[in-house]
Amino acid sequence: MSFHGGNIYDYNNIIYDFSANINPAGVPESFKKALRDNMDVFARYPDTEYRALVRSIKDYLSLDDDAYVLPGNGAVDLIYSILDSMDYNKLFTMGPTFSEYRKAAIKYNIRYEEVFCYNHDFSKIDIELFLNIVEERSIIILCNPNNPTGFLIDIATLAYIAAQLNEKNSILIIDEAFIEFTDDYPHSSFLSKMYDFGNVVLIRAATKFFGMPGIRLGYAITCNRAIWERIKKIQQPWSVNAAAVIAGSCIFGDKDYISKSHEWIKEERLYLYNELSNLKGLEVYSSKANFHLLKITEKSMDAYKLRNELVKHGILIRTPDGFSYLTSNHFRLAVLDRKANSFLLSVLYEVLL
Amino acid sequence: MSFHGGNIYDYNNIIYDFSANINPAGVPESFKKALRDNMDVFARYPDTEYRALVRSIKDYLSLDDDAYVLPGNGAVDLIYSILDSMDYNKLFTMGPTFSEYRKAAIKYNIRYEEVFCYNHDFSKIDIELFLNIVEERSIIILCNPNNPTGFLIDIATLAYIAAQLNEKNSILIIDEAFIEFTDDYPHSSFLSKMYDFGNVVLIRAATKFFGMPGIRLGYAITCNRAIWERIKKIQQPWSVNAAAVIAGSCIFGDKDYISKSHEWIKEERLYLYNELSNLKGLEVYSSKANFHLLKITEKSMDAYKLRNELVKHGILIRTPDGFSYLTSNHFRLAVLDRKANSFLLSVLYEVLL
Repeated sequence: MSFHGGNIYDYNNIIYDFSANINPAGVPESFKKALRDNMDVFARYPDTEYRALVRSIKDYLSLDDDAYVLPGNGAVDLIYSILDSMDYNKLFTMGPTFSEYRKAAIKYNIRYEEVFCYNHDFSKIDIELFLNIVEERSIIILCNPNNPTGFLIDIATLAYIAAQLNEKNSILIIDEAFIEFTDDYPHSSFLSKMYDFGNVVLIRAATKFFGMPGIRLGYAITCNRAIWERIKKIQQPWSVNAAAVIAGSCIFGDKDYISKSHEWIKEERLYLYNELSNLKGLEVYSSKANFHLLKITEKSMDAYKLRNELVKHGILIRTPDGFSYLTSNHFRLAVLDRKANSFLLSVLYEVLL
Repeated sequence: MSFHGGNIYDYNNIIYDFSANINPAGVPESFKKALRDNMDVFARYPDTEYRALVRSIKDYLSLDDDAYVLPGNGAVDLIYSILDSMDYNKLFTMGPTFSEYRKAAIKYNIRYEEVFCYNHDFSKIDIELFLNIVEERSIIILCNPNNPTGFLIDIATLAYIAAQLNEKNSILIIDEAFIEFTDDYPHSSFLSKMYDFGNVVLIRAATKFFGMPGIRLGYAITCNRAIWERIKKIQQPWSVNAAAVIAGSCIFGDKDYISKSHEWIKEERLYLYNELSNLKGLEVYSSKANFHLLKITEKSMDAYKLRNELVKHGILIRTPDGFSYLTSNHFRLAVLDRKANSFLLSVLYEVLL
């Protein structure tokens, strides 16, 4: 059983999908044009080495020559490939977090421990608590900012964690699927510090920030060539499709889309947070990402009842299925555009009255 | 190291790619139109259950309700997923055959044995020899028609093999990636007999016959629900991208593309075979697929020298790397359209003179 947002296919009337954390700006026009102009690209096998795609990613992130990039069939594919390629049998994460880490660990017979290190309102984490629990020769995955809490660990703290984990002969995977939605991006990314740590792998999803999860494009970055080679070796040939390669050739250079998206998320995250905070019966947690975790405090309501009420209005929210340490009162909302956010707020106001 | 055709990316001048076995009719117009009209589909996660896609495939193949379909990120993804999902530790194939079977077996610590059962000119196979070698509780993969020999096992023989393997508590995977290129398709497919065998899984590549390997769409079919569930359980979420889902919604109903492709392959396979047979210094083996295996009999030439000569003319051929039981004198040629085939023949005539 897999639990994810975006499952609009179970319903036939969803207009506003707040369950999937995707940029509502949608598919970039630059990509649509590039794809329209290059439809015949599907007639060829993609380059098994994905040389042009890797170059685009390296340009986008201004990577040095000693950074190694590996594209995959979405970020999830890379999570699986990384766990599959490593000879470690313990995986530690900070919960609640993305459920695919657990699923991938189970698949590869890796012991999975999801440590709760948050305070009561998900505004702080206890790093030492976490590091004390982590064992020698482990893999650690930190989703940063974290899904579903929206908590962002600053890069100085991440550097401290990476160094401590290095002492424990452990590998740190930082899943930056949502990092481009943070206000101080690119400074919030661990990329600039990555070069100091041979035990770190970053994962990025190209397609959440660029509004097209359907294209399936993720990539891993590390400065550890041996790790890169191990992952590469176990990947299937042609795992990234030709449309994703086209996307790589244009979206990273779409400065207009990128700057408008940064403006939108800065404004709308705050707007939605403030307005949600004003609603009775809800507690909303502060988030650095493009979504908010909330808790229903109204006794007669829970996330599933609320979901059912909102579906009647064409709105889908993310119920807490699959997340550790959440209750049936928790749910997650993506930040969408003003029209969608306003509509959601008006319906919530009505339903929670 | 992976060895495959279609690696035009190592060169910068390939005009005619005879190394990849793809329908030269190219990307169907029906797909181009559907994709142009549905660019926003990338803005959503695909349905993790791929319900509409499965329905399209079932319609295309007129499948009964008791046939279970599983889409994957290309046929290769399904080969890996099937081996990963099974509790068998031996894999038998008939060599020479597709190198990913071996690679997948190695990945999952499955003992791999590629049995040579052909006669001297790849026109017959010794089934009993093969069955005698196959052990209890094994997986058997037969590529039908086979890559690179083009040999087609008839469905009565396949039924006999399936029954014998059932006695041995073994699973038969029939990789029908090239079956739609055979002259008597759909009668050449094991599909109609599949319902009698709970130990059979068929694999199809949607995108060789429909001229678009870049889209990454394969599917597995079985009437064994337990096998289907096992494979499904270990698949990653969203492994099939949104463009492939769009393809599934239109290409299978593109009767014009399908009938023209059947006419083309029937005519061009024979044309190319006859013309190649007339060339000095070459032995060409009979094939039921959209490619020919050849052997260079001219002493001063081998497949690598020939490849280098042909590359000068913008032609890429498939050298024997990665194939068992072939020598450096063997190579493979896809059947392309008349213009390409004629050009190839004229250059071959010149080079082999």
